[in-house]
Amino acid sequence: MSKTPNQLLVIFGSSGDLTQRKLIPSIFKLYCEGHLPENFGVLGVSRSEVSDEDFRKKVVLENQHISDTIGNFAKRDSFAEKIFYQALGDSYDLDYSPLRERIEALDKTMGCDGNCMFYLSVPPKIYETIASRLNEQGLSKESEGHRRLIVEKPFGYDLDTARELNKGLQDNFGESQIYRIDHYLGKETVQNLLVTRFSNSIFEPLWNRNYIRHVEITNAESVGVGKRGGYYDSAGALRDMFQNHLLQIISLVVMEPPIDAKAESIRNEKVKALKSLRIMTDPDILHQNTIRGQYLSGEIDGEQVLGYREESGVDPNSTTETYAAIKFFVDNWRWADIPFYVRTAKRMPTKVTEIVIHFKTPHHQLFKDSGVDSKDNKLIIRIQPNEGILVKFGVKVPGQGFKVERANLDFYYDDLKGTRVMDAYERLLLDAMQGDATLYARADEVEAAWEFVDPILNYWKTDKNVVTYGYSAGMWGPNNADELLEGDSYWRNPGKLLTDDPGFCVIS
Amino acid sequence: MSKTPNQLLVIFGSSGDLTQRKLIPSIFKLYCEGHLPENFGVLGVSRSEVSDEDFRKKVVLENQHISDTIGNFAKRDSFAEKIFYQALGDSYDLDYSPLRERIEALDKTMGCDGNCMFYLSVPPKIYETIASRLNEQGLSKESEGHRRLIVEKPFGYDLDTARELNKGLQDNFGESQIYRIDHYLGKETVQNLLVTRFSNSIFEPLWNRNYIRHVEITNAESVGVGKRGGYYDSAGALRDMFQNHLLQIISLVVMEPPIDAKAESIRNEKVKALKSLRIMTDPDILHQNTIRGQYLSGEIDGEQVLGYREESGVDPNSTTETYAAIKFFVDNWRWADIPFYVRTAKRMPTKVTEIVIHFKTPHHQLFKDSGVDSKDNKLIIRIQPNEGILVKFGVKVPGQGFKVERANLDFYYDDLKGTRVMDAYERLLLDAMQGDATLYARADEVEAAWEFVDPILNYWKTDKNVVTYGYSAGMWGPNNADELLEGDSYWRNPGKLLTDDPGFCVIS
Repeated sequence: MSKTPNQLLVIFGSSGDLTQRKLIPSIFKLYCEGHLPENFGVLGVSRSEVSDEDFRKKVVLENQHISDTIGNFAKRDSFAEKIFYQALGDSYDLDYSPLRERIEALDKTMGCDGNCMFYLSVPPKIYETIASRLNEQGLSKESEGHRRLIVEKPFGYDLDTARELNKGLQDNFGESQIYRIDHYLGKETVQNLLVTRFSNSIFEPLWNRNYIRHVEITNAESVGVGKRGGYYDSAGALRDMFQNHLLQIISLVVMEPPIDAKAESIRNEKVKALKSLRIMTDPDILHQNTIRGQYLSGEIDGEQVLGYREESGVDPNSTTETYAAIKFFVDNWRWADIPFYVRTAKRMPTKVTEIVIHFKTPHHQLFKDSGVDSKDNKLIIRIQPNEGILVKFGVKVPGQGFKVERANLDFYYDDLKGTRVMDAYERLLLDAMQGDATLYARADEVEAAWEFVDPILNYWKTDKNVVTYGYSAGMWGPNNADELLEGDSYWRNPGKLLTDDPGFCVIS
Repeated sequence: MSKTPNQLLVIFGSSGDLTQRKLIPSIFKLYCEGHLPENFGVLGVSRSEVSDEDFRKKVVLENQHISDTIGNFAKRDSFAEKIFYQALGDSYDLDYSPLRERIEALDKTMGCDGNCMFYLSVPPKIYETIASRLNEQGLSKESEGHRRLIVEKPFGYDLDTARELNKGLQDNFGESQIYRIDHYLGKETVQNLLVTRFSNSIFEPLWNRNYIRHVEITNAESVGVGKRGGYYDSAGALRDMFQNHLLQIISLVVMEPPIDAKAESIRNEKVKALKSLRIMTDPDILHQNTIRGQYLSGEIDGEQVLGYREESGVDPNSTTETYAAIKFFVDNWRWADIPFYVRTAKRMPTKVTEIVIHFKTPHHQLFKDSGVDSKDNKLIIRIQPNEGILVKFGVKVPGQGFKVERANLDFYYDDLKGTRVMDAYERLLLDAMQGDATLYARADEVEAAWEFVDPILNYWKTDKNVVTYGYSAGMWGPNNADELLEGDSYWRNPGKLLTDDPGFCVIS
């Protein structure tokens, strides 16, 4: 295990929900499990005036999001002593001298060796302001220790704004100091994709156009927009999920083997993968290869739910997509002519994220005389829930002759007993403290993702022929999404469990 | 499901143990499940005088091997009416006119359409006599219906005697009429090997020297020779298990894809596979590539058991092997230079038969910086007990970095609910009645197997340097069996369950 250097974590926007709900509980868990260095402090920063003591109460001592499930309440008091608070004043755009002085003082008293990490839990539009104000005070200079800046998505609203944001940050911090957090990448199963592909000799030989017919990725949520109606209505599914989470997954599926497992090697290959996606600009091509939908009222798990246009914060005439399905190709040696089908949506029948590698049908149907075509093999990598890996393969139906049916070879991460899996925030925070940027997005990666997505967004926004199809909540999106798929293919509409498969039956 | 033609089954040696214990109970189950044709009869044939009625009592009505587990006792009476008995006289080598007349009469009264199948449940040395006596009476002629001859292993004692036996049978019956039964091939999982390999597009691309490092096959029994000491002492493990069962399995692993799933297509490829095994004749080569052992007294499952030389019927100075391990190569395009390791033995720690396909180590160790070498992938096909398929593959250990451990993708045939699996005898008898010879051994197959085994037997018998190593009952054979394996390989000593693996731990 890597050693974590002494450091001070400065959280901007510490009065916000995320600090109380996720950040401090995650840091507390890291503390309890001995992952934090001996000398460590957290400095909350917001506009309002709060005392250290009140802040400690709010985020530690009386924080209901800190649970005692691992029996660590005994450590709360000692942890709380490492928590501090600094008020900025009316705005984030002020002189940061008082903040600098406080940081310097804490660094000294807590023994943080000049190492400091800034976590911006604030709206993206003030990222640049904060970065610039920190830089103004010399707080981005790595003279003594490390200085890192963590920002949360969204990283831009489109390609132009992403470039502006990157430039605004890079004017004040070096790219290697900037950690763009995408909690999706903190998920074990996402990282496991790399291991599945590259630590086994049995998958990679098959991982190409010779053996794979197509790749399908589904990201479904059963929830609607909830309280995020206002934000969501200006974003839509493509910006909210596809541009970041799904393109991250896609890049891990598409990428070539990196030369080693170092952060830069992996990120180099991911950028190369994203750049190999064929960018669609022709309106006819975009028309044929993209489908957008919006949920209507309907029933999920026996409960009647609102349609998207009835949600609070949403324009009653909104055409924002809550369903997006994209077919695309990858222009490289490995994937030429192999279609990728990717969809993301809200108000689906179940919450699920999975990758399905559809292998080609056996080219010689040996057992066709037994009246059964050998069905395709599938490798299903379930990211959530019920994380695991499933191989659908042909077995002989017991009895005479050679009747073939599909059975499951399955593995569940839950079976890996004995190690508590860190949640994504814990993992990512610890990685950043240790300077491991593998699971953080790099500027060129973010821009490459926008380069693919931008023309689709433009087409959807400007072309008169674009339709937003309605689909009832609780259904698998608009019917015509099936038309996206080539030949006799159909979407695998997964169930709650990895092995759930309505279209599958081992033996009739 | 194929239709079974009306027929008469004539069992020679019907006073023997097998008829009561296996044959009649299997036929009864086929009867109860509706697999038998409308017109069907069984004629028991032995030397001693027994009435039809007494025979029915012994093999049906009072046969304790016929159980009521499937609630079919109600059908016993109607089944018993189809059972008859014919005494031959002092010897099997007599004029079969009375037998022919009885068969003709039964064929008429039972309506068997001239179809007749002869099952020889007698010592192999009288196979030829019976075949010849049947032929003498014209009973091998397929003028009206089919005439089939089923014989049980052993098929010869060595290559010469196998050839003689084949000739003796073929002088009286056509090769296509001869069904050489090997109950091993009736096992579902053995047949499933064909389906696993050839109905999936994900295994066959890897099934060759490019991806496989070596193949390991273990056939272990925990029992000793039991009451078979007399027979076994003149046979040994190589004749008893390797020449038949194991070479059958080997041929299914080695074979090229057949052009279709017809019996002759599959058997053609199996013969070709057996002929591609590199025959070892040089004493040095044989010395390096074969190991024989004999069990000493020891403990199995807490019970003290005798050594081989103390068993009843065994020569106290016997050097007969109860353990045989053979390393060999396959001289063809697919398998050149890939070692096969095959062992069979009695008095092992557990009863198990399995095939282990050891894949090559990933050629680029991407995650070696994490301090762990990616271990080899294995595909384990368990034939008995706990039948199933297991893929050992690398997964990420939850937590930071990319520590890789091996996990299991597993499938068990027991999960295929809803169909009762026929036992091997049922399956094979029904196949023979329907004329499906897929699971029966052909003459050239038997001889090809002996061609490989004969030089080993000769070397063991005649060379002064051959040692029979002792091993304690309950151990995995002689220690030096490990020296057979190349490089850093070792035998996978399997446990009772498919996933048992003493050397394996997902997370420490």
